[in-house]
This record gives sequence, structure tokens and C-alpha cells, in this order.
Amino acid sequence: MIPRYSRPDMVAIWSPETKFRIWYEIEAHACDAMADLGVIPRENAEAVWKAKDVDFDVARIDEIEAVTKHDVIAFLTHLAEHVGSDEARFVHQGMTSSDVLDTCLNVQLVRAADILIADIEGLLAALKRRALEHKNTLRVGRSHGIHAEPTTMGLTFARFYAEMDRNLARMKTARAEVATGAISGAVGTFANIDPRVEEHVCKQLGLSPEPISTQVIPRDRHAAFFAAMGVVASSIENIAIEIRHMQRTEVLEGAEFFSMGQKGSSAMPHKKNPVLTENLTGLARLVRSAVVPAMENVALWHERDISHSSVERMIGPDATITLDFALARLTGVIDKMLIFPENMLENMNKFPGLVMSQRVLLALTQAGVSREDAYAMVQRNALKVWEERTDFKEELLADKDVVAALGKEQIEEKFDMGYHTKHVDTIFKRVFGES
Amino acid sequence: MIPRYSRPDMVAIWSPETKFRIWYEIEAHACDAMADLGVIPRENAEAVWKAKDVDFDVARIDEIEAVTKHDVIAFLTHLAEHVGSDEARFVHQGMTSSDVLDTCLNVQLVRAADILIADIEGLLAALKRRALEHKNTLRVGRSHGIHAEPTTMGLTFARFYAEMDRNLARMKTARAEVATGAISGAVGTFANIDPRVEEHVCKQLGLSPEPISTQVIPRDRHAAFFAAMGVVASSIENIAIEIRHMQRTEVLEGAEFFSMGQKGSSAMPHKKNPVLTENLTGLARLVRSAVVPAMENVALWHERDISHSSVERMIGPDATITLDFALARLTGVIDKMLIFPENMLENMNKFPGLVMSQRVLLALTQAGVSREDAYAMVQRNALKVWEERTDFKEELLADKDVVAALGKEQIEEKFDMGYHTKHVDTIFKRVFGES
Amino acid sequence: MIPRYSRPDMVAIWSPETKFRIWYEIEAHACDAMADLGVIPRENAEAVWKAKDVDFDVARIDEIEAVTKHDVIAFLTHLAEHVGSDEARFVHQGMTSSDVLDTCLNVQLVRAADILIADIEGLLAALKRRALEHKNTLRVGRSHGIHAEPTTMGLTFARFYAEMDRNLARMKTARAEVATGAISGAVGTFANIDPRVEEHVCKQLGLSPEPISTQVIPRDRHAAFFAAMGVVASSIENIAIEIRHMQRTEVLEGAEFFSMGQKGSSAMPHKKNPVLTENLTGLARLVRSAVVPAMENVALWHERDISHSSVERMIGPDATITLDFALARLTGVIDKMLIFPENMLENMNKFPGLVMSQRVLLALTQAGVSREDAYAMVQRNALKVWEERTDFKEELLADKDVVAALGKEQIEEKFDMGYHTKHVDTIFKRVFGES
Amino acid sequence: MIPRYSRPDMVAIWSPETKFRIWYEIEAHACDAMADLGVIPRENAEAVWKAKDVDFDVARIDEIEAVTKHDVIAFLTHLAEHVGSDEARFVHQGMTSSDVLDTCLNVQLVRAADILIADIEGLLAALKRRALEHKNTLRVGRSHGIHAEPTTMGLTFARFYAEMDRNLARMKTARAEVATGAISGAVGTFANIDPRVEEHVCKQLGLSPEPISTQVIPRDRHAAFFAAMGVVASSIENIAIEIRHMQRTEVLEGAEFFSMGQKGSSAMPHKKNPVLTENLTGLARLVRSAVVPAMENVALWHERDISHSSVERMIGPDATITLDFALARLTGVIDKMLIFPENMLENMNKFPGLVMSQRVLLALTQAGVSREDAYAMVQRNALKVWEERTDFKEELLADKDVVAALGKEQIEEKFDMGYHTKHVDTIFKRVFGES
Repeated sequence: MIPRYSRPDMVAIWSPETKFRIWYEIEAHACDAMADLGVIPRENAEAVWKAKDVDFDVARIDEIEAVTKHDVIAFLTHLAEHVGSDEARFVHQGMTSSDVLDTCLNVQLVRAADILIADIEGLLAALKRRALEHKNTLRVGRSHGIHAEPTTMGLTFARFYAEMDRNLARMKTARAEVATGAISGAVGTFANIDPRVEEHVCKQLGLSPEPISTQVIPRDRHAAFFAAMGVVASSIENIAIEIRHMQRTEVLEGAEFFSMGQKGSSAMPHKKNPVLTENLTGLARLVRSAVVPAMENVALWHERDISHSSVERMIGPDATITLDFALARLTGVIDKMLIFPENMLENMNKFPGLVMSQRVLLALTQAGVSREDAYAMVQRNALKVWEERTDFKEELLADKDVVAALGKEQIEEKFDMGYHTKHVDTIFKRVFGES
Repeated sequence: MIPRYSRPDMVAIWSPETKFRIWYEIEAHACDAMADLGVIPRENAEAVWKAKDVDFDVARIDEIEAVTKHDVIAFLTHLAEHVGSDEARFVHQGMTSSDVLDTCLNVQLVRAADILIADIEGLLAALKRRALEHKNTLRVGRSHGIHAEPTTMGLTFARFYAEMDRNLARMKTARAEVATGAISGAVGTFANIDPRVEEHVCKQLGLSPEPISTQVIPRDRHAAFFAAMGVVASSIENIAIEIRHMQRTEVLEGAEFFSMGQKGSSAMPHKKNPVLTENLTGLARLVRSAVVPAMENVALWHERDISHSSVERMIGPDATITLDFALARLTGVIDKMLIFPENMLENMNKFPGLVMSQRVLLALTQAGVSREDAYAMVQRNALKVWEERTDFKEELLADKDVVAALGKEQIEEKFDMGYHTKHVDTIFKRVFGES
Repeated sequence: MIPRYSRPDMVAIWSPETKFRIWYEIEAHACDAMADLGVIPRENAEAVWKAKDVDFDVARIDEIEAVTKHDVIAFLTHLAEHVGSDEARFVHQGMTSSDVLDTCLNVQLVRAADILIADIEGLLAALKRRALEHKNTLRVGRSHGIHAEPTTMGLTFARFYAEMDRNLARMKTARAEVATGAISGAVGTFANIDPRVEEHVCKQLGLSPEPISTQVIPRDRHAAFFAAMGVVASSIENIAIEIRHMQRTEVLEGAEFFSMGQKGSSAMPHKKNPVLTENLTGLARLVRSAVVPAMENVALWHERDISHSSVERMIGPDATITLDFALARLTGVIDKMLIFPENMLENMNKFPGLVMSQRVLLALTQAGVSREDAYAMVQRNALKVWEERTDFKEELLADKDVVAALGKEQIEEKFDMGYHTKHVDTIFKRVFGES
Repeated sequence: MIPRYSRPDMVAIWSPETKFRIWYEIEAHACDAMADLGVIPRENAEAVWKAKDVDFDVARIDEIEAVTKHDVIAFLTHLAEHVGSDEARFVHQGMTSSDVLDTCLNVQLVRAADILIADIEGLLAALKRRALEHKNTLRVGRSHGIHAEPTTMGLTFARFYAEMDRNLARMKTARAEVATGAISGAVGTFANIDPRVEEHVCKQLGLSPEPISTQVIPRDRHAAFFAAMGVVASSIENIAIEIRHMQRTEVLEGAEFFSMGQKGSSAMPHKKNPVLTENLTGLARLVRSAVVPAMENVALWHERDISHSSVERMIGPDATITLDFALARLTGVIDKMLIFPENMLENMNKFPGLVMSQRVLLALTQAGVSREDAYAMVQRNALKVWEERTDFKEELLADKDVVAALGKEQIEEKFDMGYHTKHVDTIFKRVFGES
């Protein structure tokens, strides 16, 4: 985690304060359940709630851990300092550290998922707004970086919307993957604790009981979670690359926001760099780098080894914090992004009219010209445009063979942009469900 | 793809014959739709179906491609050789190569997913059978490779069942991710083809129309697909590692099947190697290696670049064929796996009774002994067992402080195995939904 | 491995024929050494060489393997069919299968490295030729995709040369990493075979004896080998991305070779796609995907487990064949690449003269103008150029404050291109060692 | 970076204080060079050194950056506060921010490499000491986790030594890869700065001038650096896995250090977990996860894009700090590791004498028994040992066919351990260069 690429709400999820708070709630709810079951006295369960409004003292817990060499014991010792050591003596009874640690991790991941889901929803709103705004803003579509046929800027935003909408579904599925808790003891047999304790604690924390755990919650869940984040990050990169292309000097169809006339780099608007989307490209690599380690974490030895732990201490905060930041940054970029429709037209006409050459070729063959002859007709006129930047339509109108084959009216008609945008409404309806 | 790690049905999905067959169906259904729309003559659409039972000649298509340098054109030329070039002249009209290629790829991935889903179902059946068979076969649970508390072999199989059941859900989700087709033209605007053609073709092929495509179907779908396979592969590794541990000479609680007394390596049963599960460990790495490239494929330039194509030519067949093979191999291993319950007991008693030391410690503190004293009592007896392999229960029964604290009866009771298996039914019910 | 992305020499290294040939040589040289040591009779060693010119029959070996279930035994059986089973009875004595398999793998990797090294040398020659050719071809340098300051096309080629020259060194180091052999028996103790056999065989095969092996040659060597290939692949991607950018319609400063006027896609020169470099971008992802599995292969259990084997069966051929193909393809692209110097000038002057704005800003501050005033002077003139595409130098010459600060002569001088190319010779000398 | 997995010296390299210190030195040396060249006044260059002993105020620089939005400008502004803004006015002249940033990054990586190199040297010393100590400590060698033939614990340490010695060479090569600096201006042409400034600064900082840079130092260098760390990490995992296996309850041939009789988990020595080596297994995954992003960083657009920057801000500190910590932790583990030679013998004799079965088989065939008969003889005796744990040698001595074939003396001799250790000296000499 790097402060400059992080936002406070997500960072807070991973703070020691939050962690201890969740540990406390797990322990307190577990005591309630044990009291309900008659396993421990009711008053001891109730006593634990005395600490309900306590802000646990992280420094103090660290101090105790330095002695006990055990984080959960250190916390429990500190808890007893608030609750009274006699009252606290049944806390954690029959549980194993991982019951607390793993259930806590999943609470944190669920909360992280909630933020990421909200982030994606925010991004979707921005993408939709820009899509509607530029629904009919003409722009050349490109395959291989080469001009192909006209499309619209709105379609570009709409496809990013559809992609992010899929990511929304993926993050919701990912959230469900990790929304489980386990309080099942040293090897998951509930030998020392009743399964109903697990049920109660999970319910209170908004989790489902893990149907079968060992000492730990199975890590295929977490692998799926990080994999989903890797896909989201890759989509962010996809959008970032589009914007970086749009902003390059020769294209200049769009740009990250800057206000002309300000002091600063905008003294030279031609030097305004797409640094935010370049940054997003790098951040995507970082989020993605968590995927393989998370998958390597799945194969633990027998009922658990602790190799996954150091990995999760790093990738848990890093990947979620970075993805949250990236989604928010991208939303800001989309929201305020500058669009230059005139440049779009200028680019489309770099070789005036040539973008229609395929359509003319098709028309010629449909008019009965042999494929070979059609090629030759298009080629001789296209080459002139390519070399001298004359206008393709004018060349065609001046080519008597072409005119003979198509007639002037049909030639004109082939350059009608409406031909390319006639289904934009249909596509928008598919994507946004509106007419 | 390596022949020795492949099975014919999955291989067949990726054969040129299958590919051309799918291409054919896409083109033929598209012609039908165009005829329905009155865009091309009905008889031309019908003529295409003359090739319905043709086995396309791959060598001939390759020959044509050597000249045309274009795979789709080569196929269409060959198709015309069957249908008649006049009859075939409207085939592919208004379409772009990617319409055929991408829709075909997704048909292949959907079929691959169907096989993988069936594979997982087969594996689940084997895991369930072995889980029920060994529901109460006692075995020591281990954390960190160190004996912890008793569990059962059935629980081990049950947790693998639960994990694979989650993988079943993941593969079904992954299948849905790629079950789309696109016939939308050069930049996805339907400029030259009616969206209803796409709808018809997709319906015939069991796909949904991609709501918004460019020249290609968006690659976040494929990234999610390969990521799901990476998780499945990691679970395979998880199971493989367990079996490899069980089979190591010092543990020997289970083994890949071999029949005693046969000639061959079984001349020396102690040298029977877990080569199948070691192999699965390697195959898991291979399937997982497709995940990052699939994610790197998401960010294509503008309406498409073709960088994804070479990646998919390799990882498409490789990952699905390898995962299919691995799932089938694992199913065979589980199905016939040897289980050695006596060795499980022998291992559990390596330090006789020590596995119960934690429980005794707990009992002592619950009986009012201070934590410090309880530790000391357990320690002095545990050390004797550790060093001299005496029996822990006997040592405790001979320790007057322990007897004073717990009484002989309670000491005996602490070594009752039923304590550890009392919730096996509950867990099985959670996993298999049975009582 | 995909036939369309492979070249015969590299493919041949991984054929069964080559493998069996190497196995044969290992066994035959080992027999020689054992005869020298008096361990086996000289005539038996000599008899093995009777098979020197035999092309081993792969189908026959496969047939035997179907029975013996062991590849090395199948080969030895077949060898005995050529040499005579009595004569062959000492072949492989004291050796373990891995002695043959691992030594063979390293011979194959060394040969693969030799091809890759030659490939890189070929690429270097092409890069150097193009660098010298375009040493002074002016072109705008870009940071963030935005015009920065002038540079030359020769410098672009020269930096790719320097990068590939580092890759040459890396591949040579990688070759040395795997240029070892081991004939050390079941756990590497030479219990059944004299270390001098290993020394002799390695010497004959151009390898060094592995100083200490177990059953296998340690896999950190192979991890380093595949990692080096991953770096080379990333450099290929780097060059490919540059060319793809150069060829995009709006930039068009260079292109993969095509000849104008041909039939085919060149009917529309504006639609010529950089498919080779896009393909190289994908191939780079594939080569890179071998790196992590190769690293995961390092941690084998004890004296060996066989998890690495399936991984290497796949990534050994795949990564080397793909990288060989990619290097050759890139060399072809560089060799024949079209360069469009006029377009370079046109692009540099998209906003006429603006590329010099930074230099003017610097000059103004050096002339004593405050930073704030200098910014304002540059900005007001730059904005005019940005909005109206007038000429920056003309605007400056018409701005009396600027003229007052710098004088007309100095303004003119700031637009001198020689300023930017004055150190090209120095850099070329650094890179190519020439004056 | 996680505090609990970090050590102060490596952390210090990545502190803002260190970074600003390096920036300062780059700027100050550059001023010296410019003064030598007569480009700036000598007194201005000298004035910069007034700040030689200043501890730059990070909070103040952050404050300025909050206004200027530019880290290098913020630093220069702060520097001017120390040096005097008039005196400082030539600082950074003709340079670009990346000149400072990239050269600084490489200084940091070189320093990190120096620590890592020292770490590896420390680890090598520990491995060598333990190798010599246990040179002849007998232990069974295992392939596939299955007992194979005897080896020694010293050989295990020796092979880890040899592997780490290769890693030492790799880290030295990696250090050389990044030991370059660049001060070449906005696009690497030295338009505004003399190449001799670069030469001087690099010399002062212990770097070589980058032969050809763009705005940045080429990232293939860094990719190679992180790849080397990935290999080192994989070797750490290799050693960690061995120790984890040794410590598992059923094996118990070695353990991470613990002192018997202490309070704590050592109350139950059988429950002492190999948490350090499990942790190292996880840390290896983390270091390795930096490799692919570092490779993805190579392909920057044209003369630079800034996508690499966020990646390096994270993986630069994370990978080096984690690897440093892991190497130090591993050194501690090796140094104090407990070795249990009696358990090694006990394990080797789990099936008493069976470990020699292969040798007996070989002896029988060498004595002229047919392969089939030899198998049968070994098998019938091995099965008894396998099933009843009798002694293999005794069984053989009681089997009249075996005795007839080999004689009692030869049977005895086949169980001589010296046979397996006779080349240990040779191997140690190869590894440690001693006789």
C-alpha cells in the first residue's frame, strides 16, 4: 500500500483498530451464543459487552504481544484489562486463533467488496452519463490502430459501461465467495465448541457459516476473490489505454481534464500528459500481481499451514486499496474527461473519405463489377487520396468507370454517415435498457 | 497441448474440423436470417445447407489459405466449391471475419466448459463416495504438518467435495461468461448487417447476443473464464498435495492405487510413487499460467487489436485440455485410492496420547488449576512421552497432581475419540445435505 | 507450440528423434567411461556405437513403452534390438532415468539457447543497419504519448539495439546456467556409478558436471533460463509496441512492409494493419507465462518430486519455439520496415513550432524574465497555435515582449534542429563503438 | 511492505530521507560537472554543497509539493531554501525530472542489491557450517516423498549452498544490470545538457552512464533485476519446504530451533510448528509476484510513459525488503536448526532394510539371475517386511534362493552404508573447493 494511491475508507478496513474491533465482536457474539447454550454463565457473556464502546489500545496490545508472542492472546489479555480478568475467563473458550483471524479476514474482505461495488456503481454512473452525452458524436472506429469504419464516442463509453457492469456482477459474486465465517476449532471438528456458536456469530456479522472448514477457511474462496479483482483491474487498464490513445498528440480526440489558461503545465496545452490513465495502467498490473499468489495459497498442507498468511497480510490491503483508488481515479477521469468532436472528424478525414473505401468496394461488387475490377477501381482512387490527400468521393465522381457502375447518386449515398449510426439506438437499448 | 496429457473429446473441440464446422453453421444460420429479412434470396440461403453433411477438407482449405493468406476467405472459397459459387455469393455478406472467429471461439469455450462441468461432477461423485466410506475413519488432523487433534478421513474427502462443489458453480458462471456471440461487423455498429441476424445465429448456437461488441467480443469475459480455470486447477493441486503427503513413506495413510504382488514397481510396495498426483501438481501450474496472459488480453487498442489471438490459439486448447485431463486423472485417483486406516492410528499414536495434550491442558485450567501450573503438569508428562515414547495417559494417571485435579475418570474420558467425531454428522449434513 | 508460430530448427530440438539421439549419446559415452574405468568390458562399450548411424524408430519405442510403462526402459529395449541384447546388457548400469532425462533436457536447452543467441545476433544486425540508415532522420520524441523534443529515428533503432544487446548477454548467461549434466544415480550420491562417468559424458556433450545433484539437476537453473527468456520477450513487446504506434493511421511514421499497388489489402494502403507486431505482442505474453511456473518448479520435495516434469514438457518446447519464432519475425519486420520521414516532419509540426515551446521558456528565464512572466508569454502564443494552428515562431516574432527579451535572432535560433541532434554521434559511438 | 517482515537497513533505502539525499547528490554533482564545463558559475556549484550536511525536511517538501504538484520541483524549492534561491538558480539546469528519479532509483536498487548480496553471503556461511557439521550424518534420500537410497544431511545442506551460491552470482549480475545512471534530458538526446555531466554524476555515484536512454533508463534492466530476485525467492522456498518436511510429526528429522522446557508452545514439543519456514514459503510467493509486473513495465510508449512508476513505487521497496527479511530469517533458521540424527536412522528403517532392496535386485541380476526371477525373490521378501516390519536382511539371509545366488557375505555387504557415502568427499570438494 502506498499512501498516494490509497483512500481512507479502504485503508481503515485494514487498520489494527478495525481488526481488533472485529475480533472483539467475534468473541463477544461467541460468548452470547455460549451463554445461550448454557456453556458459560450469562453474566460473563454480558460482561464482555462492557467493552462495547472501548477504542482498543493498539500500542498496549503490541506491548503485550512483544511478551506473549501471540497476537490473539495479546488481544484477549488486553480485553481482560477492560472487562476484568475474572469476567473474561470464558472468552475464546473452545476456539482456536484461526477462528478469529479467518472470520475477521472475511469480514474485512466483505467490507472491501462493498466499497469496490460502490466504486463500480459510481463509475457506471459516470460512464452512462458520458455515453448518453456523446451517443451520436461521430468518431472513426479502429482495428489494429488503423481506421476502419465510423462509430460514435457514445458507443465507446457504452461498451466500457457494459464491461464494468459485468465487473459489478463479478465483484458481487466475489463478495459472496468470502462472506463466510468459521468457528470450528483446531481442525474444524467442533470438538471443543458447538456449531451453533459459529452460526450465531456468523449471523451477527452478516456471514454464512463455512459448511466445512479445517483450522482455516478454505483458500479457493480467496483465490476466486483476488481473481475477480484481477479481471476488474484489467478492465480498468482497457479503459485507460483507450484514453491514453485518445490524448496522444496526433489523435487528440479526448484528454484527461485540464483547464486552459491556468498556470502550470497548461501553459502548454499540447504538453498535457495523460498521467492519470498511465498511472491506472500501472495500478492494474499491481492488482493483477495478487492473483497468482492467491492461487498458490490454495494448496495448504493437511488441515492448514500458515504460508498463506504473509501473502494475505500484503495482498489483502494492497490489492483492495489499490483497486479502490484506481476505480475512484478512473471515475474522476471519465467524469471530467475532455472530448474533442472536431478532432474526431478531422482524424476521420485524414485521408478524406478513404474510410468509406470498403463500402464502395462492396457496392461495386454488388453492382455486378467483378471483384478484381472493383479492387482496381478502388485502388487507383485510393492511392491518389493516400498520396495527395485529395478527396476520395471527388475522385470517384471523376472516375467514369465508377460512375458507370454506381451512378453519382449512389456514390454520394455511400458517404452518408447515418448509415453507420442507424443501430446506435438498438445497442444503447441493449446496454442501458432504454429506448 | 501434450498428447500424453489430453483426452480425445476435449482435443476434438479444438480440431480444425470442428472449427470449420462451427464456422459453417454460423454462416448458414446467418444466411437464413438474412433471407428471413429479405436481404438475400431464400434459395441462396437454402443452398448453403447443401453442405450440411459435408466433412470439410482441411488440407484443401489450407491450400487455399496459402494463396489467399486469409483463413476465413479460404474457408468461404472452399464452401463455395461445395455449394456452388453462384449460390454461395451472399454467404458472409456484411460480416467481418471476427464475427465468425469470435463466435466460434465462444462456442468452443462453451463446449469445453460443458466437458469440464461434467468432469467436476464426476469428481464430486467419487469424492462423495469416498467421504461416506471413510466418514468415521479416524485420522489425526494436522496444522503446520504437526499433529493437532483427531479428525476423520471422511471429513478430508468432504472438504474436497465442498471445494469442488464451489468450483462447479464457478465453472458454470464461467460458461455463462463466454456464452455470447457477435455478428456486428467491422467496428460493432451493425452498419452492414442487421442485429437480427446476430440474434438468430446466437439462438441457433445456444448463445446470447453480445449486448455491445466492437470488432471483437470483449475479452474481460475470457479473462474471467481462464481465471475460473486457474482456481479449479489450484484446488486440484490442493487435493494432490494432500495425497502426496499421505503417501510419503513416513506417513503412508493412503496411496494412489497399486495392486500388491504384480510385477513392476510393486515388487517393492514401499517404492510406489505418487506420480499421478505429482503430475497433477505440475498440471495445475500450467493451467494457472494461462490466467495472467488472459488478463493481459483484455486491454485491446480501440475497437480491437489482434494481440489476443496468438495467446488464445495457445491457451484456449492448452488450458482446457490440460484441465480436463487433470480432472479426469484426479477422479481416477480418488476413485481407486488406497486408504490405510491402521497406519492412521499408528501415526496418531506416534507419541502415544500426546495428541490429547491440549485437551488435558484445557481440562486442568477449567478444573481451576492456574494456567502456569497446568502448563507445567502437561509439560513434564509430555516431555516423557516425547523423549521415551511412553503413553501419555498412563503418565498422567501416574502423576498425582494431575489426578488430584482431574480424577482418574476424567483423565480417561479426555482420551475418548468420540469427543472429536461427535459433529461429523452435522458437517456431513451441511456438505451433502443429508442426515 | 502452434505450427504457425514455429520454425523447423527449433521444433527439431524437441522431436522424439532428437531426444532419443541424445539419450543414445549419453548412454554410449557413459559406456565408454565405464569401460575406461574397467567397470564394464570394452567390447560392450564399443558395441553400443554400432547404433551410431541408426535412426531410432519412435513408433517402435512407443510400442514398447505401451508395455513397459517406462520411457527410458522402452528406449533401452529398442537400443538392445540394434546392438544385441547381450552386448547391451551393461548399458545404463548404475544410472537412474533422471540421469538421462535431465542431461538430455539441458542439451536441448543449450541447443535452443544457441538458436536464440543466433536469432538475437540477426536482429542486432538488422537494428544496426536501420539505425545507421536513419541516424539523422528527424522525428519528434514523445513522453506520455505527447510531443516532447526532437530526436531521430536512428536513436530509436539504436536504443532497441542496445536493449537487445543486453538480451544477448542475458541469453548467454542463461545458456551457461543450464549447460550442466548429471549422472549421479538415484539420490545424487554416485553410489552405483563413478563420478568420472559423469565427467566424461558431460565433456563429450559440451556440458559441465553438475557440482551437486540429487536425483535431478536443481531447477533454479531452469527458472533462471526461463526468466531470461521472459525478459527477451518483454523487449520484443517493447519494439512491437513502438512499431504499432508508428503505423497507426494518425501517426504513420513507419509501417510493416507492404508494396503499394499489389492486389490485396494494399488496394487500400490506409488499411494496412500491423498484424505482425500485434502478433509479437501476444507471443511475448506467452513466453512470459512460462516464467512463474518455472519458478514454482524450483521447490521440489526432498531429492526430487516429478511435478516439474509436466510443466517442462510444455514450457520447454513452447517458450523456446515461440521466442525463436518471435525473434525471427521481428528481425524480418525491422529489416523491411517502411519509414516515412515526411510524415515524421508533418507530425512534429502538427502544432507548428510548439515542440520548441519548452526551449523558448527556458531561454526567456535565462534572459532574466521571471518564471511567471515567461509562462505567460509562452502561453499566450502557444494557445494561438493550439487553437488556430498558426506558426509558433511567427507568433513569437510578432510578440513584442518576447522579441524584447530574446531578440529576433535568438528566437530564430531556438528553432534550429541541429540543437537536438548534436550528440547523436556521441550516443551512436557509445552504442556501436564507432565514431 | 509489512513492518513485521522488514529490516531497518533495507527499509531506510526506501525512505523519503534517503531519496532526497540521493536527489541532492545527483544535483550537486551535476552542478560541479556543469561548472567544470563552464556552463554555470563555479560559485553556484559550490554553493549547493552548503547543504551537504542538511537533513532535508520531508514534511516541508511535502508541503511545497501540495502546491506545486511536482515532487522534483518541490525538492528543488526546498533546496533553494537552504542554499539561497539566487545561488540555487542553476541547479537542475537542462535536466529533466526523470534524470533525477531514474538515477536515484538505480542507486537505491544497487544499495538494495548490496544488502541482498551480503545476506546471501551470510546464508552461505551458515549453510556451509551446517554442511560440514552433518557431512556424514546418514539420512534416507527420497524421491517422490518415498524412500530411495541413503544420503547424508551434509549433502542436503551442500546442495542448498550450491544453489545459493548460484543465486549470489545472479544477484551480482542483477546489480550490474541496474548500476547505470542517466542525465540525458527530456528525450535522451542531451539537447540541453552535456553528456559529460552524466559521466561525472554516474562516476561519483558508482554507476555507469546508460549508453542510450530516452526520458528514462530502459526497463529491461529492472525486469532482469526483479526476475533474479524471483529466482532467489524460489530457492528460499525450496529450502523452506525441505525443513517443513523434516519437521512434520511423522518425519521429525529436523526442526526450527526451540528450547525444551521453556514455557510456551514448547510445553508441548510435539506441537512446535515450523512457522518460520511456512512464513518463508509465503514470502517467496510475494517476491515472485513482482516479476511479471516488472516485465510488463518494459514496453513503454515511445520515449516513455509513466505506467511503470506506480508499479515500481510498490515492488521496489516490497520485493527488496521482503527478500532481505526472508534471507535473514532463513539464515537464522539454518544457523540454529535442530537436527535429529537418531530419527533419521529410525525413519530409514521404517521398513527395516527395505531401502536396500534396489541394490539387492541389481546384485541378483548381476549375479546372473534373470530379471524376472530376481524381481520375484526381492518381492516375496520385501512384502514380508512391508506387511510385518521384519528385517529385510534377515529375510534374505533366510531365503535359500537368494543365498544361493549371492552368498551370505555379499548379502551382508549390500547393507553397508559406506557404499552410499563413499563419494561425499568428492562432492564436497566440488561444492566447497576443499579436500
